[in-house]
Amino acid sequence: MPRYIAPTEDMQFILHDVLNVNSADIPGYADLDRATTGAILEEAGKLNSDVIAPLNPVGDRQGCQYESGVVRTPDGFKAAFDQVRAGGWTGLDLPEKYGGQGMPYLMGTAVIEMFSAANQAFAMYQGLTHGAASAILHHGTDQQKATFLPKMVNCQWTGTMNLTEPHCGTDLGMMRTKADPQDDGSFRITGQKIFISAGEHDLADNIIHLVLAKIPGGPDGIKGVSLFIVPKFIVNKDGSLGARNGVRCGKIEEKMGIHGNATCVMDYDGATGYLLGQEHKGMRAMFTMMNEARLGVGLQGLAQADAAYQNAVDYARDRLQGRAVTGAQNPDGPADPLIVHPDIRRSLMDQKSFTEGARAFALWGAELIDRAQRAGDKDADALISLLTPVIKGFLTDEGYAMTVQAQQIYGGHGYIEEWGMSQFTRDARIAMIYEGANGVQALDLVGRKLAADGGKAAMAFFDMIRGFITTHKDMDAAFTRDFLDPLKTASKQLQEAMMYFMQSAGKNPNDALAGSYDFMHLFGHTAMGFMWARMGLAAHKALADDPDAAFMQTKRITGRYYMQRRLPICTSLLARITSGSDTVMALPADAF
Amino acid sequence: MPRYIAPTEDMQFILHDVLNVNSADIPGYADLDRATTGAILEEAGKLNSDVIAPLNPVGDRQGCQYESGVVRTPDGFKAAFDQVRAGGWTGLDLPEKYGGQGMPYLMGTAVIEMFSAANQAFAMYQGLTHGAASAILHHGTDQQKATFLPKMVNCQWTGTMNLTEPHCGTDLGMMRTKADPQDDGSFRITGQKIFISAGEHDLADNIIHLVLAKIPGGPDGIKGVSLFIVPKFIVNKDGSLGARNGVRCGKIEEKMGIHGNATCVMDYDGATGYLLGQEHKGMRAMFTMMNEARLGVGLQGLAQADAAYQNAVDYARDRLQGRAVTGAQNPDGPADPLIVHPDIRRSLMDQKSFTEGARAFALWGAELIDRAQRAGDKDADALISLLTPVIKGFLTDEGYAMTVQAQQIYGGHGYIEEWGMSQFTRDARIAMIYEGANGVQALDLVGRKLAADGGKAAMAFFDMIRGFITTHKDMDAAFTRDFLDPLKTASKQLQEAMMYFMQSAGKNPNDALAGSYDFMHLFGHTAMGFMWARMGLAAHKALADDPDAAFMQTKRITGRYYMQRRLPICTSLLARITSGSDTVMALPADAF
Repeated sequence: MPRYIAPTEDMQFILHDVLNVNSADIPGYADLDRATTGAILEEAGKLNSDVIAPLNPVGDRQGCQYESGVVRTPDGFKAAFDQVRAGGWTGLDLPEKYGGQGMPYLMGTAVIEMFSAANQAFAMYQGLTHGAASAILHHGTDQQKATFLPKMVNCQWTGTMNLTEPHCGTDLGMMRTKADPQDDGSFRITGQKIFISAGEHDLADNIIHLVLAKIPGGPDGIKGVSLFIVPKFIVNKDGSLGARNGVRCGKIEEKMGIHGNATCVMDYDGATGYLLGQEHKGMRAMFTMMNEARLGVGLQGLAQADAAYQNAVDYARDRLQGRAVTGAQNPDGPADPLIVHPDIRRSLMDQKSFTEGARAFALWGAELIDRAQRAGDKDADALISLLTPVIKGFLTDEGYAMTVQAQQIYGGHGYIEEWGMSQFTRDARIAMIYEGANGVQALDLVGRKLAADGGKAAMAFFDMIRGFITTHKDMDAAFTRDFLDPLKTASKQLQEAMMYFMQSAGKNPNDALAGSYDFMHLFGHTAMGFMWARMGLAAHKALADDPDAAFMQTKRITGRYYMQRRLPICTSLLARITSGSDTVMALPADAF
Repeated sequence: MPRYIAPTEDMQFILHDVLNVNSADIPGYADLDRATTGAILEEAGKLNSDVIAPLNPVGDRQGCQYESGVVRTPDGFKAAFDQVRAGGWTGLDLPEKYGGQGMPYLMGTAVIEMFSAANQAFAMYQGLTHGAASAILHHGTDQQKATFLPKMVNCQWTGTMNLTEPHCGTDLGMMRTKADPQDDGSFRITGQKIFISAGEHDLADNIIHLVLAKIPGGPDGIKGVSLFIVPKFIVNKDGSLGARNGVRCGKIEEKMGIHGNATCVMDYDGATGYLLGQEHKGMRAMFTMMNEARLGVGLQGLAQADAAYQNAVDYARDRLQGRAVTGAQNPDGPADPLIVHPDIRRSLMDQKSFTEGARAFALWGAELIDRAQRAGDKDADALISLLTPVIKGFLTDEGYAMTVQAQQIYGGHGYIEEWGMSQFTRDARIAMIYEGANGVQALDLVGRKLAADGGKAAMAFFDMIRGFITTHKDMDAAFTRDFLDPLKTASKQLQEAMMYFMQSAGKNPNDALAGSYDFMHLFGHTAMGFMWARMGLAAHKALADDPDAAFMQTKRITGRYYMQRRLPICTSLLARITSGSDTVMALPADAF
């Protein structure tokens, strides 16, 4: 059975040696000393290794069971969910006022990586609740907050987000679900939503659906969409549960993976709903939830990659097969372990350098969110808005690719369900799709975020990299060669691509869109290069004090690997981008 | 339900406009006029579209059922298998002497692409039989041929290959299965083999296992391995079936995909076996089968990519979502079809340009095999030997990546089993693993094939490309710019990588091995570039005669796409390769 050990040491390194969170000028960060974050991460790690991860293959094998509107989660999920709730993990970074622990989003992110790695299907139940609670927190009335948040923060009630309908996923303007206003100020919601994760299950007393719908007579298209709170059970004035609402799970989907999470068709038949936020401004409120969800999904990519990697390493160390080309390394055994072979290491280093770089990227993103929300920093807000589609799209594409590489290390055993490696790839696959398929992330990045506010956020990103290079360029020749020079090249290539988009925008908007996906990856690699340069710097400094620090030596080598062997892809991505849309758009639709 | 339409027009183009098979100086090719190949391909296409493809989701859902040593294949497989047999498809390119149709391997390859695309799990039953029959044909005694081939050519009996054991897959020298010689010249085979595709099933009267085992007292390691014919039922002198042999399927594996094919644990308990070929030369005989199997697996990569692509195109044409950035293209509908969006086209063009290039590559490979075997051309034999690991490794890696892209076009629906797109990726995944995992293909390419005979085959490959460029360089400026220049660049980069390996070989053999995987891809892209240049030339000539030929226009644009947007990856691959093994090998095993 696969194992999972939480990467607490690596997280501590990023938090304290790279991001220096304890001294950051963000309210709440002063509490994040090394001992405190270490204790939290250790505790979360233990829970995930011992309790949550062992349920991962159980969830995959059993899946959720549907019968007459009722959904049963896999054996052990309920008890584990109660344990997670009892430990206060579901509200770690939610306000103390509603029963949360009021920690920074940064800590929530670190812990959610662990949950997602241990058992993605399981983690989604609390993850979606967190997103729904955030939406209510930011857009709800005081009464809505008082009614729903205390129960959602501790996951006594869970949450969902309802966007997709059978005929529209990305293009929500075509939505048909309608919300008829009632005399008492509530609405009657009627329509069908599909692909609703955690839409029905047996883990919570109530399920709070956030549902996009159109109020008749409102504006056409996406501008006429509003957001509603639709509880499974009506909540009485005293907070107790009342009548069953007119919402029912019609079926659950059979999927490639995340079998432990119920993906539901939800039928709304005149269900009572309460407007959340303003009429016709539903997308704005939903985006609070979606942006958080997108970062969470990016984390899933990294998390599945890490879980798969850990098991690939175990197998590569244990499995005896062939001899090292430079001479036997296990001469007394019948063969050497796989890990002596350069191509196995090439694969493991791809995985390791991705996972650690991605972790730094995600935690940096979380820090930016805290900076935006806790310190009211508008620049941080703009930057994380720009980076969100990159974190979602790049981390899930690469994360999936890494689970495939990890599976490959097992040879034929990787294809057999018994070993668990197939589940990592099957589960990781969804992250490229949900919360906006990665092509939509690329469109969001290039079509919207890049040009927002005159491209200010992108310029700030480049300035940040340029500043980093300038500050450290005379420090050490090896550091410059290994880290700064490759970062400079990638950053220049990313800027070139952006210039290309700007120049072609007036002539042919298809040019930018045809290059959007590659641009997202070019951006992702550049950001990873920046992360590795920052981590390389931290390692460099630590090694100046203690040249024997094994962790730091490993970090430096892993960073050099990324810079040497992954970053050169940027050259090819730039070539793809600047070839424009000519060959992309030339064929008539019937020529495919 | 997914559909599959055989690419007969594209195959005809490759056979007649690119490879000009009808005028090739290969025995048997004179019969391959356009009408004959067209009739065969049409007939095979119809069978696959109408009969075999509809069973693909059935096989996935039902899987094979195991009970007490007996395996039941999914509903409909037996009837379809009988229909395939009755049509003479199983022996299309096997000798007439044994009931085959004696066609060139080329035609077998074209037809097997269709079978693999329509239903990979189903196609494997006949594919493995073909490989086993080939091994007997090349290494068997006259009596063995007479006994087994007539029944195997028409798949009345099917075949298997038994290599892997629980503790050894790639490293077969560690094999434990033993073969004890008997007084009558037969052997008693004892041991356990795993991952035996089609090891047990209900489609055939008998199953002829080709089993690697060690004769006690023979040389250690791989040099002491012999190959044996072990029938499920002993064959009597008169050809009738006798007693059940001591071989039994112990269980079937639960796998990520190819559920319709039984992947068996085979227990040999003193089973009667007959030496095939020479004692201790089992690997040589097995390689006849394995080389054929590797080409067949490469075909599977391309085939699954094509099947998935066809359905992605359907969905992209039908699904209405969003509006074209340059203005509505379906103004009367609620939205435009997906195919108007540049990023959807980018994905479809990646798929299309891969699939068509790969098809040309595979058919060219098949032509080389015919040239080697039918015309006794040693150079062709050396070249296909070099190309085999590239066809297997590159086509399956890319083929898998393309099924993932096709699935992605469907958004959430791609993740739901109902739509069938998940099956393409799950089935395609195995092709990267079996018949030698792709890392082993890369090792075979760089560690063995590249340097064979002083690198003569590789030099011949480069000469071929150079000759092609020289011959056509003054023909047309656009053709030179679009096809010849990019091909020249890629070919030079491949040569540079080879030079790097040669130079570093003496210093550090790990350098070449650390770059082997990237080299396999660099080689694959260069070969694809060569194929596209040849196809571009054919299209160019045809368009000179008829500028309105839509098929040729499409071909030219698709080729330009590959040259502009895929081939630049070679630059990055070269950079990865020439970074050497330093960062790959630096970490101690416990630092991962």
